[in-house]
Amino acid sequence: MSELRCDPVLGRWNIVETEQPLGPDGFSIERRTAGSSRCPFCYGSEAMTPPEIYALRPADSQANGPGWQLRVVPNKFPALKIEGDLGRRGLGVFDFCNGVGAHEVIIETPDHQQQLGDLSLPDIVNVLTAYQVRSLDLRGDKRLKYTLLFKNVGLSAGASLEHSHSQLIALPIVPKRVQEELRGAQRYFEFRDRCPYCDMLRQELEEDERVVCDNKSFIAFCPFMSNFPFEIWVLPREHRADFAHISAEQVQDFARLLKEVLGRLRVALAEPPYNYILHTAPIEPREREEYHWHLELIPKLTRTAGFEWGTGFYINPTAPEFAAKLLRAAVLPS
Amino acid sequence: MSELRCDPVLGRWNIVETEQPLGPDGFSIERRTAGSSRCPFCYGSEAMTPPEIYALRPADSQANGPGWQLRVVPNKFPALKIEGDLGRRGLGVFDFCNGVGAHEVIIETPDHQQQLGDLSLPDIVNVLTAYQVRSLDLRGDKRLKYTLLFKNVGLSAGASLEHSHSQLIALPIVPKRVQEELRGAQRYFEFRDRCPYCDMLRQELEEDERVVCDNKSFIAFCPFMSNFPFEIWVLPREHRADFAHISAEQVQDFARLLKEVLGRLRVALAEPPYNYILHTAPIEPREREEYHWHLELIPKLTRTAGFEWGTGFYINPTAPEFAAKLLRAAVLPS
Repeated sequence: MSELRCDPVLGRWNIVETEQPLGPDGFSIERRTAGSSRCPFCYGSEAMTPPEIYALRPADSQANGPGWQLRVVPNKFPALKIEGDLGRRGLGVFDFCNGVGAHEVIIETPDHQQQLGDLSLPDIVNVLTAYQVRSLDLRGDKRLKYTLLFKNVGLSAGASLEHSHSQLIALPIVPKRVQEELRGAQRYFEFRDRCPYCDMLRQELEEDERVVCDNKSFIAFCPFMSNFPFEIWVLPREHRADFAHISAEQVQDFARLLKEVLGRLRVALAEPPYNYILHTAPIEPREREEYHWHLELIPKLTRTAGFEWGTGFYINPTAPEFAAKLLRAAVLPS
Repeated sequence: MSELRCDPVLGRWNIVETEQPLGPDGFSIERRTAGSSRCPFCYGSEAMTPPEIYALRPADSQANGPGWQLRVVPNKFPALKIEGDLGRRGLGVFDFCNGVGAHEVIIETPDHQQQLGDLSLPDIVNVLTAYQVRSLDLRGDKRLKYTLLFKNVGLSAGASLEHSHSQLIALPIVPKRVQEELRGAQRYFEFRDRCPYCDMLRQELEEDERVVCDNKSFIAFCPFMSNFPFEIWVLPREHRADFAHISAEQVQDFARLLKEVLGRLRVALAEPPYNYILHTAPIEPREREEYHWHLELIPKLTRTAGFEWGTGFYINPTAPEFAAKLLRAAVLPS
């Protein structure tokens, strides 16, 4: 069991494991399991994961058996659990509640060798559609306020398994970074009556110095104030706060651009480990005028860590103009 | 040359290298140089660093020659440069300015083999006094608003050299995380007319569940909402916003507690890589009632990264109560 614990100064909620704390030996053990023995995400290992919540599979195949194209399962080692109530309480200066929420894994392909960027366009469309379907489904649970979709690729980016997968965490609170984005966007909007992301998109297209690639519905660029070398944002051209409201046609364009971005990264940076995080609005009935969903992709190239964590600012050794130029110049295999 | 660039939504300023951007090969090169060839921080290598700004050395020794006990030099590869003016300007939605500031290295000992925790108490006192002296000295420069003192130990914690050293970065802006702390503390103070850190200190001592060790002037504890496993904060008992106002007697107690904390970490976690960051008030004439300087130490045990960076919340697999118990139980060599 875990608890959500709040920092009384910063207002940040962390997920803290209280019942089975990882001890000094746990960290090296965790390192050892990666890449070992049988993969729980391959055909024939379906019993190694909790039962599937959602799957793409032929009508004549058995649930939790092989034959599937994509599977969504609860995380076997969840950061949060779906059962129970929140039990919000305080103790002196500290606020906390039970670690209630959902933690799911999207197994993107049965093929152990293929990474997301290797998949066919229809297969990537299936992955993004699974993101949408699961996001919408979890809205039925009134305890949950935010759905976070993200992907870790490579050991140094925090992936414990190499088989291509994404994760979904649904939370009873809106994470600090999202709250900051919402507040910052709100301030910008109050001042100018325009969405800051729409403004950024327009300026990036006009300047054309940091754009990596684009298509009818999406643009990929290295943002002006990039926190990390070769950081890439993918932004929909149409103003929309909530990713889950994406249209079927836009999913096609999103998949196409994401495949291109991953291809360019692979060529320019020799298959770097990376994380991406889908930034979207909280679960709420209204559509915010000031917010704009997008995907932030961070190749894991630098080791710098504690300093940045401690200060909230980043030292980026690679200007985004330079990164974008290199990514644009990458010759993709046809 | 670098630029300070602002995120128009989050208001975060990053340091972005614009003149000599690090390319795809740079990241592996950076990896290779670590631990190689001659150490620039040992006796006889003084010419490998820029000329010293401050040093503890016998009266009959030559500046920038051997014989010193401690040296402070400008960083040879500075993130910011001390020359020039800020040149604040905007371009569309983006705000930026020149990368003006100071970036210094505190070489803590001439002994290549010793880490900070191995040093004698008087030597650690010298290190902390150097922090104070350099902080006070840089206040003469009216362009600077914040002095950041931090230490990276171990490759995976971002240290590029193993010889024991700390860093100082003086900035023309107050970093985002510090601003958040100041605002959060202010909100807390408005509500209760008490410093939140004083409250935390009192509660930790009363509960005595997360205290690692303490002495007359300082307490070390694993905070309730710890972001990372075995995270440790060192807080002065006396309310004081600005580290640079520490008394000579308190420096002694700070050094003693820091040495004990590092000793306990070494025993409990087998010499982990770590970062520590000294959190203190901005450069300003007033003494804030609501803020309380402290040191945050983060052992680098987990790989999880992009997700936490992207969301601003942390999944901590080790409850601080468990971590504190282990650290308290560690038997120090006498």
